[in-house]
Amino acid sequence: MNDLSLFQYREFEYLLNENDLWLPYYGGNKVRKFQKILRNIKNEGKNAIVTTGGIQSNHCRVAALIAARHDMKCVLILHGSEKSFQRQRGNALLMQMAGAEIRFAEPEQIGSYMDRAMKDLESDGFDPCYVYGGGHNRAGVEAYVEHVHEMSGSIPESRIPDHIFLASGTGSTQAGIILGAKKAGWSHTVVHGISVGRNKKRGKNGVRESILMVEKEKRDLKINFYDEYLFGGYGESNEELLQLLDDVASETGIILDACYSGKAFFGMLDVTEKSNLEGNIMFWHTGGILNRMA
Amino acid sequence: MNDLSLFQYREFEYLLNENDLWLPYYGGNKVRKFQKILRNIKNEGKNAIVTTGGIQSNHCRVAALIAARHDMKCVLILHGSEKSFQRQRGNALLMQMAGAEIRFAEPEQIGSYMDRAMKDLESDGFDPCYVYGGGHNRAGVEAYVEHVHEMSGSIPESRIPDHIFLASGTGSTQAGIILGAKKAGWSHTVVHGISVGRNKKRGKNGVRESILMVEKEKRDLKINFYDEYLFGGYGESNEELLQLLDDVASETGIILDACYSGKAFFGMLDVTEKSNLEGNIMFWHTGGILNRMA
Repeated sequence: MNDLSLFQYREFEYLLNENDLWLPYYGGNKVRKFQKILRNIKNEGKNAIVTTGGIQSNHCRVAALIAARHDMKCVLILHGSEKSFQRQRGNALLMQMAGAEIRFAEPEQIGSYMDRAMKDLESDGFDPCYVYGGGHNRAGVEAYVEHVHEMSGSIPESRIPDHIFLASGTGSTQAGIILGAKKAGWSHTVVHGISVGRNKKRGKNGVRESILMVEKEKRDLKINFYDEYLFGGYGESNEELLQLLDDVASETGIILDACYSGKAFFGMLDVTEKSNLEGNIMFWHTGGILNRMA
Repeated sequence: MNDLSLFQYREFEYLLNENDLWLPYYGGNKVRKFQKILRNIKNEGKNAIVTTGGIQSNHCRVAALIAARHDMKCVLILHGSEKSFQRQRGNALLMQMAGAEIRFAEPEQIGSYMDRAMKDLESDGFDPCYVYGGGHNRAGVEAYVEHVHEMSGSIPESRIPDHIFLASGTGSTQAGIILGAKKAGWSHTVVHGISVGRNKKRGKNGVRESILMVEKEKRDLKINFYDEYLFGGYGESNEELLQLLDDVASETGIILDACYSGKAFFGMLDVTEKSNLEGNIMFWHTGGILNRMA
């Protein structure tokens, strides 16, 4: 095999069939968010990305793959064990394959490492975009407002969800779905965020602030956020949770992960039972299978 | 969490949104094939599946997930290390989560184990379907005839592929694409199968027999099958191949695996260069990322 130019790869790439059984960037809510963020990056003429996350971050995987695809430089500030990162599969492997530049930082160093990466890229002649961890920004919220709006077109009146359950982290996905449901005219839909790490107060604030990024006057929206299904905290799990994941997979063929969607599903079952919720209950699967492949 | 009935799961499942950023059964050519096989299974009123593959078989992962989804019993006869299987992620993990019954066999025992599993299921009151490893059967070939035919509707005259490259194993996917291209009226399209394990003679025979499963009169079709890109045999790879996978990922954001699509991509680059192929060259990505998550 000799020297194949980038141009040749591009030619081949152009002919790949992406629409049939191929999932762009391996899916999940981070893809939706980043595709919207990408439009902004392109509109602003930027050509590099700096962002941050853990060693199995879905968001960082998507950032790395999207950057590769769109000929952009990508610097990832990761927290966690560098040794584990090198060994792990799942998102860690894909970040490495995508050729992102990886820098490791302690949690308290992330801000300064992000700033430093921005400056380094500027010195190298790039025009970089600073993307908050998790895609937690206005574009990320807007992506989900649009998502619900799109989806609402194909849901008949009788199937409009009375309750939507989803995994909620920094709050932008939940905020987008709350606003999207309003925009779609789903006046009775209640959105339930099951926390994957934050306590109730901090979680609710995250959702509220995310709502205000997009709609300044929506100060009075009720926010449902549950911190009873943390299983010890972010990234923690136990046998009961893992057993539920197996049960759901074997009953339905649907794969949940222990970090995000599994906790949300567990919470949904418990809340619907305890509160006797009825009507159309929608579980919003936010993706994340690659976490289970670590 | 108390006793949640199967019925409740089904209710929840029904409301999952599968059409947005969720890939049924995690994709690849085995999904296409099995969805067609499934229609036959249902038409025949069968309610259990017996099939076979390696411990990281994409086909067996799809069989297990589809069976879970459609309330069918699934017995998988796997060859490979049981110990590795228990430890591995990727397809192995999904087979376990999906609740398939797993039996291990030496390669030479597979036939008798398959027969035994059929009898066991019948004794237990099931009406099982025997599915050849890899989904290598008439329905598998037909799935790909339909696939090309569907796709052809959205490809304009100027973009009809002159050459299609794909990973070729037992030959049914390649056979389906060859027949599908004919059916679509793509008279000039040449289909190139890059072997993932078989030598040229056996590989060509596999493709030819697969063609004859569907169209008995097509005895004279030219079959292009290359065994120069085996990298030592089925499942084997080397640094040069792995480097190509990293290069493709970092240039395009597209992930190939070392067992199937990566070898096909390598072969495509070499064949197009050595034979000076021109025109529209299509790389048919047959999936398989979960192999890399072992």
